[in-house]
Amino acid sequence: MYASGALTPQRTHFHTFDTPGDALALDGGRTLPSHTVAYQTWGHLNADRSNAILIFHALSGDSHVTGTHVDGRTGWWDLMVGPGMAFDTDRYFIICANVLGGCKGSTGPGSTNPATDRPYAMDFPVITINDMVRAQRPLLRLLGIEKLQAVTGGSMGGMLTLAFTQLYPDMAEHAIVMASAHTNHAQAIAWNEIGRRAIIADPLWLEGNYYDSPQGPPKQGLAIARMIGHVTYISEGAMDRKFGRALQTGTKESFTFGIDYAVESYLAYQGNIFHQRFDPNSYLYITRAIDYFDFAAKTNGDLTAAFAETRTRFHFFSYDADWLYSPERNETMTLAAQAAGRDAVHHKIHAPLGHDAFLVLKEPQTELIREFLS
Amino acid sequence: MYASGALTPQRTHFHTFDTPGDALALDGGRTLPSHTVAYQTWGHLNADRSNAILIFHALSGDSHVTGTHVDGRTGWWDLMVGPGMAFDTDRYFIICANVLGGCKGSTGPGSTNPATDRPYAMDFPVITINDMVRAQRPLLRLLGIEKLQAVTGGSMGGMLTLAFTQLYPDMAEHAIVMASAHTNHAQAIAWNEIGRRAIIADPLWLEGNYYDSPQGPPKQGLAIARMIGHVTYISEGAMDRKFGRALQTGTKESFTFGIDYAVESYLAYQGNIFHQRFDPNSYLYITRAIDYFDFAAKTNGDLTAAFAETRTRFHFFSYDADWLYSPERNETMTLAAQAAGRDAVHHKIHAPLGHDAFLVLKEPQTELIREFLS
Repeated sequence: MYASGALTPQRTHFHTFDTPGDALALDGGRTLPSHTVAYQTWGHLNADRSNAILIFHALSGDSHVTGTHVDGRTGWWDLMVGPGMAFDTDRYFIICANVLGGCKGSTGPGSTNPATDRPYAMDFPVITINDMVRAQRPLLRLLGIEKLQAVTGGSMGGMLTLAFTQLYPDMAEHAIVMASAHTNHAQAIAWNEIGRRAIIADPLWLEGNYYDSPQGPPKQGLAIARMIGHVTYISEGAMDRKFGRALQTGTKESFTFGIDYAVESYLAYQGNIFHQRFDPNSYLYITRAIDYFDFAAKTNGDLTAAFAETRTRFHFFSYDADWLYSPERNETMTLAAQAAGRDAVHHKIHAPLGHDAFLVLKEPQTELIREFLS
Repeated sequence: MYASGALTPQRTHFHTFDTPGDALALDGGRTLPSHTVAYQTWGHLNADRSNAILIFHALSGDSHVTGTHVDGRTGWWDLMVGPGMAFDTDRYFIICANVLGGCKGSTGPGSTNPATDRPYAMDFPVITINDMVRAQRPLLRLLGIEKLQAVTGGSMGGMLTLAFTQLYPDMAEHAIVMASAHTNHAQAIAWNEIGRRAIIADPLWLEGNYYDSPQGPPKQGLAIARMIGHVTYISEGAMDRKFGRALQTGTKESFTFGIDYAVESYLAYQGNIFHQRFDPNSYLYITRAIDYFDFAAKTNGDLTAAFAETRTRFHFFSYDADWLYSPERNETMTLAAQAAGRDAVHHKIHAPLGHDAFLVLKEPQTELIREFLS
């Protein structure tokens, strides 16, 4: 039933497939009659189909984990995925799909609503992390995979990883959860909400119907949301070391409201280019899903009971200067998983950079991951 | 030369005075031919004029430190200033003025530009923390005060306090610097810049010329700036304890983009009301002044050399959960002051609330301040 092009999962090409026979019942009560999953794979699936690893991307990620894409971009996890890497494409069959609600090929608010033949925009249903995971279940079926060597991801990808172990307790041998949390805490909700408000307050947002607007998407609002995000991704100390109070140009403050400091220039640049690769409505939907995530919701807040429903071995990675999802929150998860009888280890990594360390650190992650996957 | 109404510094009334004969040369190179200072006083100046304490307010503060104002508002430091309080109005003569660039009576971007008879808006000069301090010097002259028992303030008020000790080294016996920093670090600049961008991106901002606009000021942009500020004023743990993931209404998420969580409701409320008492252009100018502040700028970054130019006794208060201006940054100041031979003490207060603790904690601040003032 899957309408897909030539399926060549061994190659690092970009695939999409639709799920016309697989209506997706969503946590919010609505149903998507069909949806598209955009994904990529690397390596070879072995004969007994036991060497697959499913990677979940973070908020602004996509399916392009590693290697040079046809559009010239390199992957967001080149350091960790490839021949001889932690997720060794010579040994494992690596899969990554764009999340539901995203804007990199999978169905999201920018996709065509079959009921109107126009972009969904705000008619797209509010979705959850669990919905995103369920949306990828047909992909595994398509690939003929019923057991995964591992599921993994950082930040929101870690939440998707946790959700996977709860929804499909018999499928994954290992769960590798990096720089993540079992639920989104108040301060993290606050940052997301302020970002959403900036997008919604942008006059170009047009209640979400900017897809055909001659003025383009709400770039300013998205830029502000992205700038807030960026500050949370690195530590205060890393910002001191990387930027300090260095001026972007010249030797003296301008005494204007233009860009004076290197940190202002960096954030403005990151904010201003983001609309080129990200749909503001997807930012709304994905951050809302993150805010709604609560691994213990099904068990009425009892985190140990939530882990008791899983049958996966857990590896938590936290980074000591990560102030978005702190080591303490990861330790809480680890202790709850252990209390539930799960095999769970917490690797606290010294990483002055902060949250983004999961994306840019190669060691000691590589050595540790190789060890427990082998 | 001061055009003022009946001067009654012993009463808690609101005063303004102008400085027509006192042109103010600004750090940015421009000059204000005259400016207005709005201030209030409490208590009585003693016969030898030696019991005055000058309080500097923080970013969104004003001259109304304590007591019920004519408009019904209570003071922002009611807990610390009053009869029998840390800053005891039975013993001391307390002075507080709205900062230059502000919007509570002192000259700022919303004031009338005498050259055009219209609001300055963005024709107001970009100012510095030092400029704000210099702008209050004529007030002390007006009141006949050449020696201060103490200068004090929290957050930006602490920066003003530091600047005072550098500009007028012989005037203040004690400097009490709370939850502050000797310069604004990269992450703090980032938050300010994102807030400014939100204001400037608001279509109602109109290049700053919204004072006569029928649509009113850029409320949305100011709200976003204020929401960002509020998150930095309290700790992650305090947000967990105060809000956690509590829903504002009902027992289930709404699956909309409306307000679900109590933390969203709190921030939206704080953001939405802010325009009622604060001018968005003042937010731009004051945050820029904070970003520009560097106590060691005059001494080419040598903080010890900067303290060597002072002759005040320093009392630094920091709050252990303050992540905006951390205890570490306060310790750096203290050590530099001590290395310069200054009498400097650092009081690290256990305060799970975070930055705002300087505003809402009564003890142990009160006891400590009483002790070293007596």
